[in-house]
Amino acid sequence: MISGMDLKALFSIQYGLYIVSTKADGRNNGQIANVVFQVTSQPAQIAICLSKNNLTHDLVKKSGIFGVSVLEQNTPMKLIGTFGYKSGRDIDKFEGVNFETGPAGCPLVKDNALSVMEARVTGVMEVGSHTLFVGELTCASCLKECPAMTYEYYHQVKKGKSPENAPTYQNVSGQPKKVEEKVTMKNYICNVCGYVYDPSVGDPDNGVAPGTPFDKVPDAWVCPVCGVGKDQFTEE
Amino acid sequence: MISGMDLKALFSIQYGLYIVSTKADGRNNGQIANVVFQVTSQPAQIAICLSKNNLTHDLVKKSGIFGVSVLEQNTPMKLIGTFGYKSGRDIDKFEGVNFETGPAGCPLVKDNALSVMEARVTGVMEVGSHTLFVGELTCASCLKECPAMTYEYYHQVKKGKSPENAPTYQNVSGQPKKVEEKVTMKNYICNVCGYVYDPSVGDPDNGVAPGTPFDKVPDAWVCPVCGVGKDQFTEE
Repeated sequence: MISGMDLKALFSIQYGLYIVSTKADGRNNGQIANVVFQVTSQPAQIAICLSKNNLTHDLVKKSGIFGVSVLEQNTPMKLIGTFGYKSGRDIDKFEGVNFETGPAGCPLVKDNALSVMEARVTGVMEVGSHTLFVGELTCASCLKECPAMTYEYYHQVKKGKSPENAPTYQNVSGQPKKVEEKVTMKNYICNVCGYVYDPSVGDPDNGVAPGTPFDKVPDAWVCPVCGVGKDQFTEE
Repeated sequence: MISGMDLKALFSIQYGLYIVSTKADGRNNGQIANVVFQVTSQPAQIAICLSKNNLTHDLVKKSGIFGVSVLEQNTPMKLIGTFGYKSGRDIDKFEGVNFETGPAGCPLVKDNALSVMEARVTGVMEVGSHTLFVGELTCASCLKECPAMTYEYYHQVKKGKSPENAPTYQNVSGQPKKVEEKVTMKNYICNVCGYVYDPSVGDPDNGVAPGTPFDKVPDAWVCPVCGVGKDQFTEE
């Protein structure tokens, strides 16, 4: 008999990475999500799973509409940071972001999106800390052809960590092994969001070339995911 | 404004490939599924989406338990064919398959599985042609470390087609582009399940070497997915 509870088994489940968006009371908001999937083809219905702690959750509940942008593999950590580690309670996440509105009124993020979809909620299921929303598509559009960001790639290559309210099990030490181990220069981890600065990779999105050790990274540099300063980093 | 309904956008959503299993009335059954995902971490709950046409659906509804095996990238098409294109109404899918039972009594398929989990149903949501089942884990176990089978890999490299009752949109001509185009020898498609025989790939799992044109494939060869004979294949 198989027994025991090795929660690392959950890491083998496959996901993409998405921006889920909505608009309620004249307010646009959105968040990073990894749980988006199709549930039926006739009619075309998709489902999402959102934390009850997140503003997007409350706004979807209110508006009954949601948008999905399927993110490409090359999505910069900055976009993921804006939508995944900041709250729409504090900032307008759509400022400076390229988006268009769907037929039901959702803002659909086009930056780094392979495709966008919008849906009208047809079913809601409470599952404890999260809510599953099912919606029927109101529009769907392909924007570009390139590899999608998978959750695995996000963790392994982009060194991203699950935000606190992700439905997925979080345990940095238990996460899948890195694609390559570097021992020549030390990695530094962000104590706020878990982003790992790997000197061999640098942060080219933000002007830090591969091969730059952490102490040579400019003092003005901030975590590309959550935006805190260098002082929030410690050796991994 | 973004409008229109290009359902190919749904193809950019990312999935793995799984065997979902259960046991009811002393009967083991299981099926291939692509929709398995975690919905909460405390407690650890996962969800699955099954077609109401499938026997596994009815048996999960009856038993209130389900198992999940996360399939590895190298899973042979034969295993996918047995669980995805045959019905437990006709055969015992577990015959000759390596499995163990979970604490709640589910048969958990270990062949080609990265990990296995078992869950007890905590929530059920009707979504038209399909049902979403949410369950709390009763066990979880990692079996091996290697790449998981993604739905994209299954379509692009293994040339698999979605079974009729998959929640995902099906349209062979609209499916993602193949990884490589071969023009030297003709591909043959199975008219029953959509499996494509690519001569450059052959069917090494079943003794057909890469580079074997379709007319040189032994007459006794059958579709590795659904089991029909060569006469059910036509030029692609």
